[in-house]
Amino acid sequence: MKTDDSKNKQSLQELIDTKDFVEHISVDCAIFGFDEGIMKVLLLKYHDLDLWSLPGGFVFNDEDLDDAASRVLYERTLLKDVFLSQFHTFGKIDRTENNVHRILLKNKAIEVSKDHWIFQRFITVGYCSLIDFTLVDSFPGALNETIAWFEVNKLPKMAFDHEEIIQRGLEHIRKDIDTQIVASKLLPEKFTMKELQTVYETVLGEELRRNNFQRKILALNTLERLEKFYDGSANKAPYLYRFADKK
Amino acid sequence: MKTDDSKNKQSLQELIDTKDFVEHISVDCAIFGFDEGIMKVLLLKYHDLDLWSLPGGFVFNDEDLDDAASRVLYERTLLKDVFLSQFHTFGKIDRTENNVHRILLKNKAIEVSKDHWIFQRFITVGYCSLIDFTLVDSFPGALNETIAWFEVNKLPKMAFDHEEIIQRGLEHIRKDIDTQIVASKLLPEKFTMKELQTVYETVLGEELRRNNFQRKILALNTLERLEKFYDGSANKAPYLYRFADKK
Repeated sequence: MKTDDSKNKQSLQELIDTKDFVEHISVDCAIFGFDEGIMKVLLLKYHDLDLWSLPGGFVFNDEDLDDAASRVLYERTLLKDVFLSQFHTFGKIDRTENNVHRILLKNKAIEVSKDHWIFQRFITVGYCSLIDFTLVDSFPGALNETIAWFEVNKLPKMAFDHEEIIQRGLEHIRKDIDTQIVASKLLPEKFTMKELQTVYETVLGEELRRNNFQRKILALNTLERLEKFYDGSANKAPYLYRFADKK
Repeated sequence: MKTDDSKNKQSLQELIDTKDFVEHISVDCAIFGFDEGIMKVLLLKYHDLDLWSLPGGFVFNDEDLDDAASRVLYERTLLKDVFLSQFHTFGKIDRTENNVHRILLKNKAIEVSKDHWIFQRFITVGYCSLIDFTLVDSFPGALNETIAWFEVNKLPKMAFDHEEIIQRGLEHIRKDIDTQIVASKLLPEKFTMKELQTVYETVLGEELRRNNFQRKILALNTLERLEKFYDGSANKAPYLYRFADKK
């Protein structure tokens, strides 16, 4: 999706003119979704640059860090009410490669003094989420103009250390997979063991053995077994399950 | 342990005069150790204030975030080569209660302008570690004068949001317990299942059933079974184990 360039320049100018951000701190959101068995991540593209980036932004002086992550995600993707997990803070000295912002501003003919806060060192706090891929119908914010899903194994050229942030976010989702799948609402209320296994396999990026999977998942006591599911076919009817309420 | 006050004032003055820290960012280290079956955390006490705090400090402009955590921990506790895990970043607006620094500086008769960086909002990155309690023989840095271990369930009055940081750090250690115990080097090279279970119980703060524990821990494939341990008593000799090398 494209936005017209004059609007884009205007909002970038607004961002640059903002004086009430906490300096040196940013937030970046790694939003994962899956499309027919493939894990994808949501990326934005810098204008006039062959570089993609995660939806990210800055923290207002009077704003909690977690709230900033939700607001930034909304402003840049229109995604709302997303279960965001903070997973890691990235603070290598050289992680913010200033040229990205310089070229971006130059291309838009926006003049900024050399000691502007946007050129300072930034430490970024990473948030991630697993969401329903089909929910996203959005447009980019001030700094970007296109938005798209990419397979996590086939990333385009990324700005800053965003490729590392994606890998770390994916590790977090995989480690915390039970909570993440429940929070993602990716499954219908009632589902078969096979449907659940497909979701696990997609997130983990590997095939699982059916018996092993079933034994391990049932040992967690997170599922409630319901009635059998008859689809009218000659196959043996599988049981339906739902996530048990944790009280 | 106490340090003399004149030295303390001098080093606090040095800290206040430092101009090459990244503003708004700090690091705090929650160091856990255990003493005869009880989990403890290492705290420092602010001078002339009835408030304890985690060993923490600031990040130099030319320093990676992770390196800052190690340096700060060393400067304030003399602990070296500690396996530090970054676990969460704390960014609530009101988490840095400026009065702590104001009173501290006033008590030492150090004059600081109202807009000094130390009074700004700070977002802090939490690091934690599980270490051998007996390793610590250290003295405090510029801001503090006493250092002590406290039971995690019996914390004294804490500065800022440090109590929350400790709770979150403890959750991280418990969630990541297998890695943390290996990294902590708390056990001798060869140990019995009973010794291992005691370490787990202490970290988790709960008793575990012997059969359950043994079954679960062996299923992880992280242990290597060695010879039996004969202590000359009439009891049945238990096997010794060691952590298997991961290759």
